[in-house]
Amino acid sequence: MEKYVYLFDEGNKDLRELLGGKGANLAEMTNMGLPVPYGLTVTTEACRLYFKENQCLNENIQKQILKGIKKIEEKTGKVLGDAESPLLLSVRSGSPISMPGMMDTILNLGLNDKIATALSNDEASRRFIYDSYRRLIMMFADVVKGKGKEEFEDYLTKYKEKKGVSSDLDLTALDMVQLTEAFKKIYRKLVRENFPDEPLLQLMQAITAVFRSWNNNRAIVYRQMNNISDSLGTAVNVQEMVYGNLSESSLTGVVFSRNPANGEDRLYGEFLIKAQGEDIVSGVRTPISIDRLEAERPKIYEELKGYSKLLERHYKDMQDMEFTVEDGKLYMLQTRCGKRTPAAALKIAMDMVSEGLITDKAGLMRLNPDDISATLHKSFDEKELSHKKPITRGLPASPGAVSGQICFSLEKVKEKYNKNISVILVREETSPEDIEAMKYASGILTVRGGMTSHAAVVARGLGKCCISGCGDIFVDALGGKMTVHGMSFQEGSYLSLDGSTGNVYEGEMAVCDISLSSELLKMIELAKKYKRLGVRANADLASDAKVAFEFGAEGIGLCRSEHMFFEKNKIFAIRKMILSMTDKERDEALSVLLGMQMKDFEELFKVADGSVVTIRYLDPPLHEFLPKTEEEVRDLAHGLKVSVDEVYKKIDSLKEFNPMMGFRGCRLSIVYPEIMVMQTTAIFKAAMRVQRHGIKVRPEIMIPLIGDVNELDYLKKIILDVISQIDKHGEINYKIGTMIEVPRSVTQASQLAKKVDFFSFGTNDLTQMTFGFSRDDAATFIDDYYQKGILKFDPFKTIDKEGVGKLMMVALKLARESNDNIELGVCGEHGGDSESIKFFDKLGLDYVSCSSYRVPSAILAAAQVEIAKN
Amino acid sequence: MEKYVYLFDEGNKDLRELLGGKGANLAEMTNMGLPVPYGLTVTTEACRLYFKENQCLNENIQKQILKGIKKIEEKTGKVLGDAESPLLLSVRSGSPISMPGMMDTILNLGLNDKIATALSNDEASRRFIYDSYRRLIMMFADVVKGKGKEEFEDYLTKYKEKKGVSSDLDLTALDMVQLTEAFKKIYRKLVRENFPDEPLLQLMQAITAVFRSWNNNRAIVYRQMNNISDSLGTAVNVQEMVYGNLSESSLTGVVFSRNPANGEDRLYGEFLIKAQGEDIVSGVRTPISIDRLEAERPKIYEELKGYSKLLERHYKDMQDMEFTVEDGKLYMLQTRCGKRTPAAALKIAMDMVSEGLITDKAGLMRLNPDDISATLHKSFDEKELSHKKPITRGLPASPGAVSGQICFSLEKVKEKYNKNISVILVREETSPEDIEAMKYASGILTVRGGMTSHAAVVARGLGKCCISGCGDIFVDALGGKMTVHGMSFQEGSYLSLDGSTGNVYEGEMAVCDISLSSELLKMIELAKKYKRLGVRANADLASDAKVAFEFGAEGIGLCRSEHMFFEKNKIFAIRKMILSMTDKERDEALSVLLGMQMKDFEELFKVADGSVVTIRYLDPPLHEFLPKTEEEVRDLAHGLKVSVDEVYKKIDSLKEFNPMMGFRGCRLSIVYPEIMVMQTTAIFKAAMRVQRHGIKVRPEIMIPLIGDVNELDYLKKIILDVISQIDKHGEINYKIGTMIEVPRSVTQASQLAKKVDFFSFGTNDLTQMTFGFSRDDAATFIDDYYQKGILKFDPFKTIDKEGVGKLMMVALKLARESNDNIELGVCGEHGGDSESIKFFDKLGLDYVSCSSYRVPSAILAAAQVEIAKN
Repeated sequence: MEKYVYLFDEGNKDLRELLGGKGANLAEMTNMGLPVPYGLTVTTEACRLYFKENQCLNENIQKQILKGIKKIEEKTGKVLGDAESPLLLSVRSGSPISMPGMMDTILNLGLNDKIATALSNDEASRRFIYDSYRRLIMMFADVVKGKGKEEFEDYLTKYKEKKGVSSDLDLTALDMVQLTEAFKKIYRKLVRENFPDEPLLQLMQAITAVFRSWNNNRAIVYRQMNNISDSLGTAVNVQEMVYGNLSESSLTGVVFSRNPANGEDRLYGEFLIKAQGEDIVSGVRTPISIDRLEAERPKIYEELKGYSKLLERHYKDMQDMEFTVEDGKLYMLQTRCGKRTPAAALKIAMDMVSEGLITDKAGLMRLNPDDISATLHKSFDEKELSHKKPITRGLPASPGAVSGQICFSLEKVKEKYNKNISVILVREETSPEDIEAMKYASGILTVRGGMTSHAAVVARGLGKCCISGCGDIFVDALGGKMTVHGMSFQEGSYLSLDGSTGNVYEGEMAVCDISLSSELLKMIELAKKYKRLGVRANADLASDAKVAFEFGAEGIGLCRSEHMFFEKNKIFAIRKMILSMTDKERDEALSVLLGMQMKDFEELFKVADGSVVTIRYLDPPLHEFLPKTEEEVRDLAHGLKVSVDEVYKKIDSLKEFNPMMGFRGCRLSIVYPEIMVMQTTAIFKAAMRVQRHGIKVRPEIMIPLIGDVNELDYLKKIILDVISQIDKHGEINYKIGTMIEVPRSVTQASQLAKKVDFFSFGTNDLTQMTFGFSRDDAATFIDDYYQKGILKFDPFKTIDKEGVGKLMMVALKLARESNDNIELGVCGEHGGDSESIKFFDKLGLDYVSCSSYRVPSAILAAAQVEIAKN
Repeated sequence: MEKYVYLFDEGNKDLRELLGGKGANLAEMTNMGLPVPYGLTVTTEACRLYFKENQCLNENIQKQILKGIKKIEEKTGKVLGDAESPLLLSVRSGSPISMPGMMDTILNLGLNDKIATALSNDEASRRFIYDSYRRLIMMFADVVKGKGKEEFEDYLTKYKEKKGVSSDLDLTALDMVQLTEAFKKIYRKLVRENFPDEPLLQLMQAITAVFRSWNNNRAIVYRQMNNISDSLGTAVNVQEMVYGNLSESSLTGVVFSRNPANGEDRLYGEFLIKAQGEDIVSGVRTPISIDRLEAERPKIYEELKGYSKLLERHYKDMQDMEFTVEDGKLYMLQTRCGKRTPAAALKIAMDMVSEGLITDKAGLMRLNPDDISATLHKSFDEKELSHKKPITRGLPASPGAVSGQICFSLEKVKEKYNKNISVILVREETSPEDIEAMKYASGILTVRGGMTSHAAVVARGLGKCCISGCGDIFVDALGGKMTVHGMSFQEGSYLSLDGSTGNVYEGEMAVCDISLSSELLKMIELAKKYKRLGVRANADLASDAKVAFEFGAEGIGLCRSEHMFFEKNKIFAIRKMILSMTDKERDEALSVLLGMQMKDFEELFKVADGSVVTIRYLDPPLHEFLPKTEEEVRDLAHGLKVSVDEVYKKIDSLKEFNPMMGFRGCRLSIVYPEIMVMQTTAIFKAAMRVQRHGIKVRPEIMIPLIGDVNELDYLKKIILDVISQIDKHGEINYKIGTMIEVPRSVTQASQLAKKVDFFSFGTNDLTQMTFGFSRDDAATFIDDYYQKGILKFDPFKTIDKEGVGKLMMVALKLARESNDNIELGVCGEHGGDSESIKFFDKLGLDYVSCSSYRVPSAILAAAQVEIAKN
């Protein structure tokens, strides 16, 4: 016969599906010999049957319950309905997947007039027992009969008013007796029958009520939101009541085996003396830190700590436990794996590995790669967050938390920065021109642009907090103010940005600082043991690269050489180059740039110290380098000795309708080969110089936006010519490769692969051109795409396997067929996304490259995908 | 033994490779019995051998030449070197592929002192013979000895000065004798030997000199430019001299068997009395029209006409002939297929079909589809063109020729238009907003944009002449002027545009008008018999569609529904829709638009009269519809009762970085489904109404820019809902399809094909996104791509088979695998390009669609590809 009822010593933690999480863990603890109030679990199978059989609890199940109750009575020496030694029960839900607070609970079950009277030994116990009794009546009316609690609570409130007291604690035993009588009357009025004084009847009705709560509205919605199947059903746990509110030597609490905020290996939690579990949750009384328990009830604390360690060792994970002390005796009421912050997750996993509690692999598999970068960023104090409402919300473009004064211009940002004031740069959008301001700012807030907009990419690269696409904001930079939902903020007002959620808050907020921890270093070390995929970093300057290598990068997979130009003196030189009217002028400007780039590359090669450095040649449209403000134009005209008009004319002539598909990438070097000559010269002169100082240099030259083998041939010849002039004896071990980012390059992969040493997929551009989505403009419609279920995910964040991924597969097949030794990587933002990394690993790519701050999470993801294979 | 020398009666026209074009045709004419001065051809094989054997004419060849000369002597009764009856010869080059003027010629060969004296019967003959003699000496020094003609010409000039005469004609017989003597001296001085008086020696040296001229500089350059192989070699034609300058009853001329400018079936050409062929080419004397020959020498004219007809019937093509009359006797010196204008080509081919001279298929195959549209456009008078220099040059975006006053604004254009003045709209670039101005203008000139820029596409659609991407021009619209290369043109100045070459001329020029000819109609009719591919037209309004059907379109393959909005009252309505702040406002605006679209569709369906009409839903980014000038903004704000600021704010909010990849296409309808509801309603209400009047309506609904099947599902449901409400009984026979223009749609073709009735490849966008080239911005770098040989053709004009074509093949394979009945077409500009049509036919597409004016050429191309298969 099917078993629908399990006594706690009949189950175990592996029966989660059948007994629910709570029931399985109560059984496990019982079998471990922990002091668990005895009880039984009615299975999820019984629940499913209950619904199948038209909401009728069949006799078989009823019989098994009765048999179970008998066992409980035997074990506890108490008897249900017996006045001398009554068994009082709690009836709680417990589904296979935790749905906290969604379903119903009934406590104190088994009470009736007879028992209440019998238990009233003195004033205190009488008050206690009638307090419990009147609660039972109310809960029963609410949960079992569906009549709600309102009338009961109204009555209680009025009663207290009449008595002139404000707290329940001020009510006497007599008050409780009177309230119980009154509640019975209300019950009769609402339910049109008497409150059942037969405990068994109470029990059966309570069990079916909990079953039914599986299908209450909030539970259904919760399941929809969390993708939990409706067919699971809930188990019901029937357990002997223990009372944390029985006496002064009673208490109740929740405790974590380790600190869930930072992972410290020390009990963490709260308790309340003379209280029930609900009191902690409700927040009526302020709980006391578990540390006080150590001081005040050291024996209890030690016992609890012992159980905690036992459970942790047993479950091999940090536990979140509920306990109650009834008259000095500790009972364990619940245990489960505890939720934790990313930082705590990291520390706990690594500590447990160190303690030998779990294996390397288990420690790594327990971490969520996408949470790892969060451990590298600041966050707001949890408490402050809990009572602040955001004024608006944008896209969480780069994690971190920052409070600062808003500024709209580089000048203002610098001015504040020099005064040591934290600044938030607020812009309609940012452009490469804004990099200087972004460097001085602590956070960036933009009105337009998506998760991979310029602001977002640069901010992530710089490790700065950024919220982009915050469309509710209207920036009036000239007027020195911004408005949002009718509120106006002057330049210099304080805002706070939470880059992990996209929330924007008014005013200053406290920030918790988290730095590169030993746990992270350990995680990186472990993960490297298991991963196959190489992980490189996108870093443009020596300082960025330094951070990247600290974070475990094995090389630089993308150095955007143009980013070296964005400092004041350099941008002037490149503007001169662009505006040159004669070849001679251009050559002069280029020779100035050459010196600057050489120095930058030297520093970069030194930091790389033997690792690969992949350098992408000048990529963005030239107009991005040109001045924007009138003042800048005047300065430039003056510096170049040309008229302001001429500068404007040039700016105008470089303007493009669709710059993303315009005069950029390798097209620049085809029209102006001298740029490529300069860049190659800078790389190889720097490489020779550094290598002669004993540091190996491994440059990989990467040509962007190639779509045809003729482009590659033309440019490669220029590069090889320069190299042969500088590196006459072949001292430098270099590679030449191309990006695959234009769909056409996919179709040409066979021819291209024959001529290069590597392919690097520029998945940002490839995604843009495959979808025909400009990443900067998609914000206007993409929300509708999500809402209407057309897009399930952001293709700029996670690789689109069905579309972009298919093109990648075509390119890879063609490439491998025509070049056995070709190195294959990804340098788009997807290189740092764990879901995408899984896919890239499957494709057999050699490496991914992502922004420095995402390197650890990429390393972890790369390890996980390998571990998961075994 | 290898035959290196062919007498004229030994060869024929099929030996072109061996005898060269001229030699083969001379042989052919000889065998046809035409009066050809007898001669021989030394083969190209001999030429190749000459070079192979270190520039030595071997004895075998020499012997064959001598044997040939003997035959000529027999045939003519004249003897080389004989004083009584001397044989005089011309020695001319003739390669298998015509290289006009590139190689050398020697005339009058065989003359020496003895013969010159003997031939001097009287003063006139003496003058004639010594004139010929002194020319021979000069030519020989130049061509055979490589000493140039300069010293000879200098001497002649000084001699005439001394004699006080200005023309050679004023020189006497004595002068010629003296000049001959002087030339001999100069020859001796330059060559350091005497001029050879042995005719056979002259001949052999002349033949090898002509061989050598195959490798002179200008011939080599010409072959490189025209992709002619260096290994072909030239033949040499040795032919008895006949003299058009011998007497007053001598003349020489060139004549076409039909008019090469317009195709008229009547001799066309020029002649000069008492002249040699060179005189016609040199332009020293003005030739006389061949019509005068009919009047003055009717017998000669009739004979010539007879030969002309004979040759035409023999060669089955229009002939370009050279002839000479020596002392009243007509000789034919050359015949070849004549070059002709596109209009003439069309008329000649169709006339010859009518005459039964060639078959339908041959007539069609003889035409160049890309020239056909030129026959539909005006062109400048050839004579005027020949002496005008363009002031600048842009891209030949839309053919035609137009002179007009330049204007920079709609107001000015309209003002002039209303005064019946032809106007050229000059713009930095055009936008859909400019359509009204473009309609009033006769021609369009833009500074930016390529062959498929907005200006170009619209202009071609409207059949207006357009030059785009004319980067040398600087437009100062506010200042009411433009400058180009330092020249300044005020608004109202006259310019002339040649849309077939891209040349821009100053001032007004005479234009030839060509209208839809009966030949074109015949060509369309014939071509339709043979073609497999369907040919539809891109037409947005009923008026466009009417033209399209006249030109043979079988349906409308692309009606850009938004173009219906670009008239003043309609654009106001759509602006209202875009700027609506509430749903109610938007609904109101849409209902106004609904009425307008319904009316437009009704007209269109009526014109289509049972043919398919493919309607593309709203496609361009919304900001394209918004006002641009301050005045327009004010008007709109007033009309909408909102502030000017609000209008600007909205315009600003719709601005995009890369509109081509932004909020456009089906994305508009996903965010604003009400637009799609309105358009579907308009289509079906119009269809029902027209169909109830007895005209069958076959709408094909086409959704643009689909990239994912979820988009399609979402939108198709909306469309079907609307249809089911309007067409309750399924009266309308419609199809629903999607464009394939985003690379991602290629990867999704399998899923998409299951849900639609047709795919239409939007090859313009597909090309843009596959290459990552914005068609409007590519002009900045594409020239370098051509110059550097990276691109061999314009991928926006001719489909890129290697890249875009491969993606198309993938999509087609996937589509056919999942939907047997799917209809497959192309509606990009490539649909009108013959090279692309070949490819589309090979892919097995069902139809192409192109702008109305390209329909005839598309039909022809579609026929040719089928004919070529057999």
